[in-house]
Amino acid sequence: MEERKKAIGLLDSGVGGLTLVKELKRLLPRENIVYFGDTARMPYGAKEPDAVRGFATEIIDFLAATQDIKLMIVACNTATAVGLSYYQARFPFPVLGVLEPGVHAALDKSRSGRIGVIGTEATIASKAYPNAILAKEKDAKVFDKACPLFVLLVENQLIDTPEAYKIAQSYLEPLKEQGIDTLILGCTHYPLMEHVLATVMGEEVALVNSAQYAALAARDILQEKDLLNSDKQGRLCFFVSGDPKNFEQIGEGLLGHGVKAFRVLL
Amino acid sequence: MEERKKAIGLLDSGVGGLTLVKELKRLLPRENIVYFGDTARMPYGAKEPDAVRGFATEIIDFLAATQDIKLMIVACNTATAVGLSYYQARFPFPVLGVLEPGVHAALDKSRSGRIGVIGTEATIASKAYPNAILAKEKDAKVFDKACPLFVLLVENQLIDTPEAYKIAQSYLEPLKEQGIDTLILGCTHYPLMEHVLATVMGEEVALVNSAQYAALAARDILQEKDLLNSDKQGRLCFFVSGDPKNFEQIGEGLLGHGVKAFRVLL
Repeated sequence: MEERKKAIGLLDSGVGGLTLVKELKRLLPRENIVYFGDTARMPYGAKEPDAVRGFATEIIDFLAATQDIKLMIVACNTATAVGLSYYQARFPFPVLGVLEPGVHAALDKSRSGRIGVIGTEATIASKAYPNAILAKEKDAKVFDKACPLFVLLVENQLIDTPEAYKIAQSYLEPLKEQGIDTLILGCTHYPLMEHVLATVMGEEVALVNSAQYAALAARDILQEKDLLNSDKQGRLCFFVSGDPKNFEQIGEGLLGHGVKAFRVLL
Repeated sequence: MEERKKAIGLLDSGVGGLTLVKELKRLLPRENIVYFGDTARMPYGAKEPDAVRGFATEIIDFLAATQDIKLMIVACNTATAVGLSYYQARFPFPVLGVLEPGVHAALDKSRSGRIGVIGTEATIASKAYPNAILAKEKDAKVFDKACPLFVLLVENQLIDTPEAYKIAQSYLEPLKEQGIDTLILGCTHYPLMEHVLATVMGEEVALVNSAQYAALAARDILQEKDLLNSDKQGRLCFFVSGDPKNFEQIGEGLLGHGVKAFRVLL
């Protein structure tokens, strides 16, 4: 099969990566996109790194066996933080994570070099973000904070509740006190509650949506390798490991069209 | 996507269609093949025609949504008998059944015009085989017999047991007594127990393996429409609706290589 016609694979623990799908569809509407949301095993953030790496590998194996893949995007910060180089060594196609693009954008935006990072427990415990930021800019000051409840607020459609604002206030206050000017949303679920985070952080803090920058990075990789598809309109298909209903509902709200997800048991 | 690069979709109630996969791989090794075995809902043979038509449609919908399909083969006689024209009207790609190719081959082989047909209850009750045979050759004499236990013998790996021979004897004796010279294996499971059937029927009766002729018909359709793939080696992937283990075991025995099947809940 001609390389260009192959699909971009995406994986996430659940619905979070849909924010990246939305960016990709906007940026690269001709690409075929195949998405796997591991909704039966989410959230990933509180699980052992080995377990998360195993889940992600199983999903990429599934996509590689059932589709023709030209680029795989690990649209999950946790799975990226605990295993990106492992997946890259294992698979024949390029595997892109969401961490590097987010770091790159944050360093671009920050004037003071005081950068906040929020993510799941596993992402924050991995120190992958501070390490990546400091490797690029040794004078940066990084303040990170695990926000385990955010994924659950998003997956359970509880974003626009008073509790969501209270939880956000409680998680983010320490970062505000550090005077950060940039906050990396280090979890693909967080852009789905960006309005809550923006309200709590205030106008002076720039929010970095990793999904957006990962989509740009994906385009750059495909352009560079001359792998952009020229078909009229790409195919978009969704697999989930749990009940498709909730996923379809959130997907439809986000993408603005009907979403059909098929349930696969891995 | 270029039409030629697209996949051939196959559906069956279970492992039976694997006999057709084997023929296709031999005949058209460059083709991408995607197979769906509805092992959770098999056997189809004793179910209502409406239900079987619904299952088959759901499966073709799944394959059409998650793959690029250029030709669909309903590798299940029951699903063919109860709904081929329905699927053909519903989908934009050609849909091939296993019935016509088998009928064609049987009429070619038979000298006496006395043709036996075995199949599931639903296939036999539909009278699809006698109707198709008599439409082509009005002087033919068709003797048909439902053999409901054969699918279960195959799916449960009980072919090489004394019971299998006794069951076959009991089903086939009435057909032998009618002096048929040709027997259509009107179920894709039956070629998997062809040695049992051949022993019981004796050398004078030619067995027609529909799967073999369906593969030839598929090649003819693709050739005619200039849709044959020129890739080096086709991709082969399997979905099942039930436990993949048994399917993989039978598939490996039949195809002679490792088989990985993914479970999808429809």
